[in-house]
Amino acid sequence: MDVFLPPTSYEYATVHKVVGGAIAPATDVLAAEEPLEIRVGFGPAAARTHRTLAITMRTPGHDMELAAGFLLSEGIIRGRADLNGLLYCPDVQKPEERENVVRAELAASVSLDLPRLERHFYTSSSCGVCGKTSIEAVHAAACPVLPTTGPRVAAEIIHALPERQRAAQAVFEQTGGLHASALFDAHGELLLLREDVGRHNALDKVIGAALLANQLPLHQHVLLVSGRASFELVQKAAVAGIPVLAAVGAPSSLAVQAAHNFGMTLLGFVRQQRFNIYTHPWRVAGI
Amino acid sequence: MDVFLPPTSYEYATVHKVVGGAIAPATDVLAAEEPLEIRVGFGPAAARTHRTLAITMRTPGHDMELAAGFLLSEGIIRGRADLNGLLYCPDVQKPEERENVVRAELAASVSLDLPRLERHFYTSSSCGVCGKTSIEAVHAAACPVLPTTGPRVAAEIIHALPERQRAAQAVFEQTGGLHASALFDAHGELLLLREDVGRHNALDKVIGAALLANQLPLHQHVLLVSGRASFELVQKAAVAGIPVLAAVGAPSSLAVQAAHNFGMTLLGFVRQQRFNIYTHPWRVAGI
Repeated sequence: MDVFLPPTSYEYATVHKVVGGAIAPATDVLAAEEPLEIRVGFGPAAARTHRTLAITMRTPGHDMELAAGFLLSEGIIRGRADLNGLLYCPDVQKPEERENVVRAELAASVSLDLPRLERHFYTSSSCGVCGKTSIEAVHAAACPVLPTTGPRVAAEIIHALPERQRAAQAVFEQTGGLHASALFDAHGELLLLREDVGRHNALDKVIGAALLANQLPLHQHVLLVSGRASFELVQKAAVAGIPVLAAVGAPSSLAVQAAHNFGMTLLGFVRQQRFNIYTHPWRVAGI
Repeated sequence: MDVFLPPTSYEYATVHKVVGGAIAPATDVLAAEEPLEIRVGFGPAAARTHRTLAITMRTPGHDMELAAGFLLSEGIIRGRADLNGLLYCPDVQKPEERENVVRAELAASVSLDLPRLERHFYTSSSCGVCGKTSIEAVHAAACPVLPTTGPRVAAEIIHALPERQRAAQAVFEQTGGLHASALFDAHGELLLLREDVGRHNALDKVIGAALLANQLPLHQHVLLVSGRASFELVQKAAVAGIPVLAAVGAPSSLAVQAAHNFGMTLLGFVRQQRFNIYTHPWRVAGI
């Protein structure tokens, strides 16, 4: 199980702690937040172009995985073969910015639709201006329908996931400030955990780790996310081929619609021996 | 107190509810999530230009406030006088997209720095590629230093805020799926509450409502946000002149640095008669 968190992921702070009417100094641990700029190099060797694709506020650590997962889940690349390499950008001058810029070198065969990207990246991963077009755009861009031959997971395994995730979340326990995204096999074994101040980043780190390890698509897996399930999380999980998405919190209306259309089993409020099944309940054994 | 939530903010869904090993059908309420495209019209009457600035995934309702707050907190406009009007864009053809596109008509005197905007809006409100440059960029763009003559708030008033917010959150109680942003006066009276699947949107709705009502800057107010405090929330609150930001959850490292630099009092883990003071504790009476 891979749950490594580097020391750049958190910081210590001196605070005043107020309890009722009493006040005392105390030390608190903060989840680190810094911008990450994701650049790509593309085109033939003779006319190589570099360009900034996105800037995201993230918790430092697993930056190459984050960049790789972002490129895949946003439809820029289709697989490991589209990626020649990833590095902290050597052109950055200021020392404090050096580990905040990652450059992905794309294979010469990858063509970027720049006008689409410019529109697409105004704000994260919304693809249209109504839920219907958003879902259609994801389908068209990057998202094969999930297989109907995937795992069936017993309710008792699902009930056990949040505690297994929490037990592995060192920094979350300290700061309460990080979202987690945890990948399990169909027997409930935790395979990979990533944490971030942004829930979309935590998921991109998981997807990127799987991509770089040549483990995609994740057709036999269950993903647990610590917060709510938004459209964006459903979209990213679908691109990675994940058939079961479980959220500790509530799903949004568009998350449910998207999961329905993609053939994904979406579970919400997974905590304290309870959960709701929103879509495709047949993957929960006994239903 | 203004806490109106329109019926488009939520939807009903039929789910399977699992409790332990038992399963039963049930009805659940979902927080609605739909994209909102924010367009601006700018330039002199003889050469008026229209352009998409951003697309954000939001909960429908209070869309004009959201657009107005976004434009202010992102530094596009500096005040009410920069805004000639706001409307659902009449050029949209598809009926299902009609209420998902808002156009803001800017005063002819407003000049847009388009290259800066393009870079800026790759992803939300990050302004540089390290925390330091992000904070400097906000300072330079839109953010006057907060006054040192503002309110001092007693600990007992702060302890009471979360319960007052929750009592007013009709949809949150039903779905657990919405972030809330609540504006109080220095005596703890709730003035305005807005909810959204995105926490930055909930705050932009509050700021936009205050802007359209000519109530800015909010120098005598306290803001409570339901989740964690990120850099982005601190930035937006600072632009609106809010001197005290209280979060039910944890702040990030960059949120604390930014609040320190902006002269803002930042409180975290505000719940169950406890809270931590991260910056500028002098605004909490008795410190």
